Amino acid sequence: MQLVKMDQVTEVENGNILTPKGFKTAGFHAGLRYSKKDMGVIFSEVPAASAAVYTTNQFQAAPLKVTQDSIAQEGLLQAVIVNSACANAVTGERGYQDALKMRSLTAEKFSLKESYVAVASTGVIGEYLKMDKISKGINALTPGNLESDVEDFQTAILTTDIVMKSCGYTAVIDGKTIYMGGAAKGSGMIHPNMATMLGFLTTDAAISSEHLSVALKSVTNKTYNQITVDGDTSTNDMVLILANGLAGNDSLTPDHPEWSTFLKLLTQASESLAKQIAKDGEGATKLVEVEVLGAKDDEEARFIAKQIVGSNLVKTAIFGADANWGRIISSIGQTKSLINPDTVDITLGQIKMLENSVPYEFPEDEAREYLNQPFITIGVHLHVGNGSGKAWGCDLSYDYVKINASYRT
Amino acid sequence: MQLVKMDQVTEVENGNILTPKGFKTAGFHAGLRYSKKDMGVIFSEVPAASAAVYTTNQFQAAPLKVTQDSIAQEGLLQAVIVNSACANAVTGERGYQDALKMRSLTAEKFSLKESYVAVASTGVIGEYLKMDKISKGINALTPGNLESDVEDFQTAILTTDIVMKSCGYTAVIDGKTIYMGGAAKGSGMIHPNMATMLGFLTTDAAISSEHLSVALKSVTNKTYNQITVDGDTSTNDMVLILANGLAGNDSLTPDHPEWSTFLKLLTQASESLAKQIAKDGEGATKLVEVEVLGAKDDEEARFIAKQIVGSNLVKTAIFGADANWGRIISSIGQTKSLINPDTVDITLGQIKMLENSVPYEFPEDEAREYLNQPFITIGVHLHVGNGSGKAWGCDLSYDYVKINASYRT
Repeated sequence: MQLVKMDQVTEVENGNILTPKGFKTAGFHAGLRYSKKDMGVIFSEVPAASAAVYTTNQFQAAPLKVTQDSIAQEGLLQAVIVNSACANAVTGERGYQDALKMRSLTAEKFSLKESYVAVASTGVIGEYLKMDKISKGINALTPGNLESDVEDFQTAILTTDIVMKSCGYTAVIDGKTIYMGGAAKGSGMIHPNMATMLGFLTTDAAISSEHLSVALKSVTNKTYNQITVDGDTSTNDMVLILANGLAGNDSLTPDHPEWSTFLKLLTQASESLAKQIAKDGEGATKLVEVEVLGAKDDEEARFIAKQIVGSNLVKTAIFGADANWGRIISSIGQTKSLINPDTVDITLGQIKMLENSVPYEFPEDEAREYLNQPFITIGVHLHVGNGSGKAWGCDLSYDYVKINASYRT
Repeated sequence: MQLVKMDQVTEVENGNILTPKGFKTAGFHAGLRYSKKDMGVIFSEVPAASAAVYTTNQFQAAPLKVTQDSIAQEGLLQAVIVNSACANAVTGERGYQDALKMRSLTAEKFSLKESYVAVASTGVIGEYLKMDKISKGINALTPGNLESDVEDFQTAILTTDIVMKSCGYTAVIDGKTIYMGGAAKGSGMIHPNMATMLGFLTTDAAISSEHLSVALKSVTNKTYNQITVDGDTSTNDMVLILANGLAGNDSLTPDHPEWSTFLKLLTQASESLAKQIAKDGEGATKLVEVEVLGAKDDEEARFIAKQIVGSNLVKTAIFGADANWGRIISSIGQTKSLINPDTVDITLGQIKMLENSVPYEFPEDEAREYLNQPFITIGVHLHVGNGSGKAWGCDLSYDYVKINASYRT
């Protein structure tokens, strides 16, 4: 495999959830969808320290409750069972029992404690799982002989996504080479009732569930939580990480001298998946990155960056390649964040639009040409503090309307 | 004129800002746009008690600052000068001087104190007013002989709006017949950098500026602030009311026995304009009304209603006539408001979708037929309190993207 260096963290080309030692996957067709693969499993040879972050939507789906229950017991997981097509959300007690059943069937099949199994679902809200098909699908798995074609898993978790999302990174800790791999789905930060961003990370690093949870939470705020496709937050969003310790490093804690290297590894992998999700937003033709500098603090910088990248008006302007900075400044002004209306700079790529809140003469042709690229960056400097933050999103196109006006029926 | 009774408040068919006694208008072409009328004026025969509410966007446009200054002096206005095509927002000191000049030219023309003149602008952000054309336009007015064709004014204030927005209501207070009329523009709650909702109300009621301001603020939270087209808040939003007292009632105060009648009059007029704006949202094909009952309090009910009606996913589903209640419940769950995930009812028109958070079997054909009507109501009952509130919006169509992908250039 070819490596690309980045500080202490190096990207693994074509890296994925099988890049770290000791993980296997499968992806298969259980009949929840017509022909596309619709179920997948991740398996670790040994119990893996685990942590997860969950949607803040108050209608949290049943599989998330079951996964929380599993991790709460020993902080260890060995298998993750996932289905697409049905989110098993807003399905009441029956939906909860279905999610428990998915867990117990998988535990039985792999001869694991039930608490070593996590469950994830994505698809339509308010419909029940077809448990006969789910059961048959799980029963057909052959644990001793799991496929190693990661694309089967990556495909099985997709819904309206157009492309598979994966990444792999490596770093050296305690002289040991540690790998981290990721897979994700999500074609809206939230998909309506397509519901959901799902992120899966595997690593062979040794770390306790407790410290893994701390690391995941801190990184999530700067990565997954900073993408938006349509401003809606699913009932099923979840990012789950499994660390099986097979790399043989000393167990990582915040006091470990190379803790920051591990955080970088996790940040790179998470940012990579987050950007892949934003880029594949429903109907998207462009990936948009907004960086805010000079805010009161990092939190306000991230908030403003997400406000800009989430504005329908900014998104449609980018779709139309219109260098309409008025919409950017209007987005900034809508926040309650600390700004000085007289000290705002805005740049589009390298092109200055506004300096000290005064319009800048810029070449329209050049701006239009820049906006026709597939990756757009917007820079904002507020000059009121030292806070900085980024957010990612996509443009708003006719296809977004088309996809969402006709999804369910 | 034909009257339609509503409690103590009666609608005046084809009512408008000239319905109350003592108001005149003009609308004319000053050359800011190619051929459409682009400037207008409202004139009261006598100084009118005045109040206004302004955008919460931190980049408040220059004309709003000048209008605030005028009202702050004596609380009286006699003329309102308005232009479309240019918002005079984010234009710095020069833009502020231009807005002051619009005020002084109008005051001179009508032989008024400067503080008796209000200024409003709507159009592109970040461009300067063409003051030569504005000056010529104001100079061409003939104060003694203002036109009485209200449509000239109603047209002059429009930008991407498709239809004029006006209303008229009447009530009896102190045995006197009091009229209230309104005119508005706004084809997005915010238009990007088309910027803006503008609302103008006239009434011949007698009331002080102070009490008028209290009344306007309380009504605004339930009406104008409850509409959304695209979630963005303009730099130029303003609602302005002029009360010239010519109806001859005792001056209204909160202690007046018929204060509530006046509030109803103001509420009816404001709700009418707000709904007309939502219905004419950019690209809209349907007006959507969401009513939330059983919330913790009215404020949370209004917040949730606005969250639902503002969701891109709900809006696209309505455009596609897809009875996708999963998107509605996901919107509710995203709020931090008090809910019980097990006690939510959702109805679409008269069709039950969800009862006690359990999906209800509903006739898909009937739901689709209902969603193909031009006026859609969504009802939500949370069963956690007695709060209630409404919000209004529109669907999200291909034309929304078309309009906003190509506006500026």
